Amino acid sequence: MKILILGGGGMVGQKLASKIAAEGLKGKSVNELILHDLVQSRTPEIMTGGQDNAKIKTLTGNITDQSEAERIASLRADLIFHLAAVVSADAERNFDKGWDVNARGSWNLLDALKKEIRESAGEYRPRLIFSSSIAVFGPPFPEKIGDEFHCSPQTSYGSQKAVTEQLISDYSRKKIIDGISIRLPTVCVRPGKPNLAASSFFSGIIREPLNGKEAILPVSTSVRHWYASPRSAVGFLLHAALLDTSKLQGRRSITMPGVSCTVGEQIEALRAIAGEKAVNKIRHEPDELIASIVKSWPRNFNPARALNLGFSAEQDFEEIIRTYIEDDLPKN
Amino acid sequence: MKILILGGGGMVGQKLASKIAAEGLKGKSVNELILHDLVQSRTPEIMTGGQDNAKIKTLTGNITDQSEAERIASLRADLIFHLAAVVSADAERNFDKGWDVNARGSWNLLDALKKEIRESAGEYRPRLIFSSSIAVFGPPFPEKIGDEFHCSPQTSYGSQKAVTEQLISDYSRKKIIDGISIRLPTVCVRPGKPNLAASSFFSGIIREPLNGKEAILPVSTSVRHWYASPRSAVGFLLHAALLDTSKLQGRRSITMPGVSCTVGEQIEALRAIAGEKAVNKIRHEPDELIASIVKSWPRNFNPARALNLGFSAEQDFEEIIRTYIEDDLPKN
Repeated sequence: MKILILGGGGMVGQKLASKIAAEGLKGKSVNELILHDLVQSRTPEIMTGGQDNAKIKTLTGNITDQSEAERIASLRADLIFHLAAVVSADAERNFDKGWDVNARGSWNLLDALKKEIRESAGEYRPRLIFSSSIAVFGPPFPEKIGDEFHCSPQTSYGSQKAVTEQLISDYSRKKIIDGISIRLPTVCVRPGKPNLAASSFFSGIIREPLNGKEAILPVSTSVRHWYASPRSAVGFLLHAALLDTSKLQGRRSITMPGVSCTVGEQIEALRAIAGEKAVNKIRHEPDELIASIVKSWPRNFNPARALNLGFSAEQDFEEIIRTYIEDDLPKN
Repeated sequence: MKILILGGGGMVGQKLASKIAAEGLKGKSVNELILHDLVQSRTPEIMTGGQDNAKIKTLTGNITDQSEAERIASLRADLIFHLAAVVSADAERNFDKGWDVNARGSWNLLDALKKEIRESAGEYRPRLIFSSSIAVFGPPFPEKIGDEFHCSPQTSYGSQKAVTEQLISDYSRKKIIDGISIRLPTVCVRPGKPNLAASSFFSGIIREPLNGKEAILPVSTSVRHWYASPRSAVGFLLHAALLDTSKLQGRRSITMPGVSCTVGEQIEALRAIAGEKAVNKIRHEPDELIASIVKSWPRNFNPARALNLGFSAEQDFEEIIRTYIEDDLPKN
C-alpha cells in the first residue's frame, strides 16, 4: 500500500506520518509513505522502529499548480490524506491566496485524480481523507450543533472547506474517488510555540504554564469551545482511512467528536494536573479583537454520527492535557 | 440602472426580462437591459409598452471561458441575475460539463467581477442574484425542511449549486459583490413542450390536459413535491434584487416559499378547474427509473426566513394552475 500525505510537513501531518511509520495501518502493509508539502517536510523521528519498514519519501510543490496536482495524482497512492491548507487567519487576510490554495488547489487535485483514474480504466480509485474543520459552521448556533446543521461559515477558511467537502462528496458519489471529509475540532494542546492565530491561546494557556512559561488569556473564562488532542486528530484520520464508506449513505462529511468546555474549565483541569503554580502563570489581558473573532466559533456539538461510526476523542479536558504531557511535553 | 440577465434566453430569464421591460424595477429607472446566453436570446415581446423604455441588448457567450466572464464583468451592470446553468439531468449525465458550467463558470464570473471591482477602486459593487435550487438538499429529509437543514445534495447539479452558494456568500461577506442565492422550488407549470427532465411530468400532467393533449404520469399519485409558478420565480428574483441585505445577517442563501402537494392533489386541483375531461387525459404509466430519481427530491419545507423577508408564492396548487392559465395558456 502506498500512502500520500499532502501537508505532510505540518503538525498533524508529521504526527500522522510517525504513527503510520511506527505501526503501519491496522494490518495493512505500507510499502511507501510520501510526505508532500510546500517546503521540505521533516522525516518523522520514529521511522524504522515499527512493524512496517515503509520507504519514506518527501516531495515539495504547490497544489495550486495544475501540473503539480497532476504529478501528485500520477503517484497513484492508494490512500491520500489531504491536510494541505492555508490556515484560517491567513485565508481571512489574504482572500485570493486562501481561495486559490484551499478550494482551487483541492479541486485541481480532484481533477488530476479524475484524469489519472480515467486513464487507469477503472483500476485506480484512491481513498481520500480530507481534513475539514468545524469552521464550516457559522453563528447563530443551537446549544449543540447536530449532524444536520447547515454550513453557513462566516470566514473564508470555513467557506473553502465547505466547497471542498461538496466536491469530495460528488466526486465520490460518481465513484471517481472514495472520499471522506472529517471536520476537526480545534486541535489542542498544540505543541510548539505560540503563533498569531486567534485560537493560539487555547493551547497556550495550557502548554506555556506546563513548560514554566507565562501565558496570556485574551478572552473571558466563560468562553466555550470544542477540542480534541493532536493524538485524537491522527486517530480520526486513520479511522476514516479504514472506514467502510458504504455506511455513510452518501453523506461523506462527518463532524468529529471532541470535548466541549469553557476556558474556566480548561484552567481548572490545568490546576488539577499541575497545581496552583501552573495556573498562576496565566495572565488575563482582554483583547477585544480576539474576543469578537472567537465569539463566532462553535461551542458544542452532538456528533452522534461520528460516534456511531466508531470515531472517538478524549472524554474531558484533563485527558487532553495528559495526552499533551505524554506525547509532547519536553522531558527534562 | 443597468441590468444583466445571464441565462436570459431561458424560460425564467425571458419572463424576468419581459417583466422588467414592462414595469421597470419598482421605482428604479432601468436604462439598459442585457440578456446574455449561450445562444441568441429572443427579445421579450413586451418591450416598449411599460413605464421604462429600457434599451435592450442581447449577447452570446459561454461563462466557462474566463475571457467571456471578463467581458460580462466589464459591462459593470448594477444588477446581475445569474440564471445560467446546465440543467439537472444534463449535469448528472455529463459530469465535467456540469461542473465546468455550473460551478467553474460561476466562479469565473465572480473572479472577473472581483477584478473589475478592484479596478473601480470601490466605485463598483453589483447586486448579484443567483438562482439556486432545492436540489442543494439530499435525503433523508425531515417532514419539513427548515432553514437550518444541511446541504448534502445527492446530485451533481445540487452540489454545483451548493458550491456557488458558498462562493457568493464569502465574496459578499468580503464586500466584493452584494449577493443573494435563492433556492427555487420546482417551477411549475412550465409552458412549452414536455422535455427529457425527470421532473417534466409535474408540469406535463397539468399543461398537456389544459391544451387538450394526453399526458403521461410515471409515478404514484402519493408522490409529494414542492412547487412555485414561473410568475412566483420571477417575483422572488425581483424581490431579492431590492432586498435590504443587511437583514440577512451573513446568511445569503434563502429557501424560497412554495406549495407542497402530492401528485394526487395536483390532479384534484386540475379537476376543480378544468373538470373530468381534463383529468381523463392523464395516463398512468409507471416508470421505475423516474420514480427512483423523484424519491430523492425534497417534499416539503418550512421557509420561515423567506416569508419573514417578504418573499411570497402561491397558496395552493389551484392558484398555480390559474397562474398558468392567465400567463401562458395559448388563447384560442
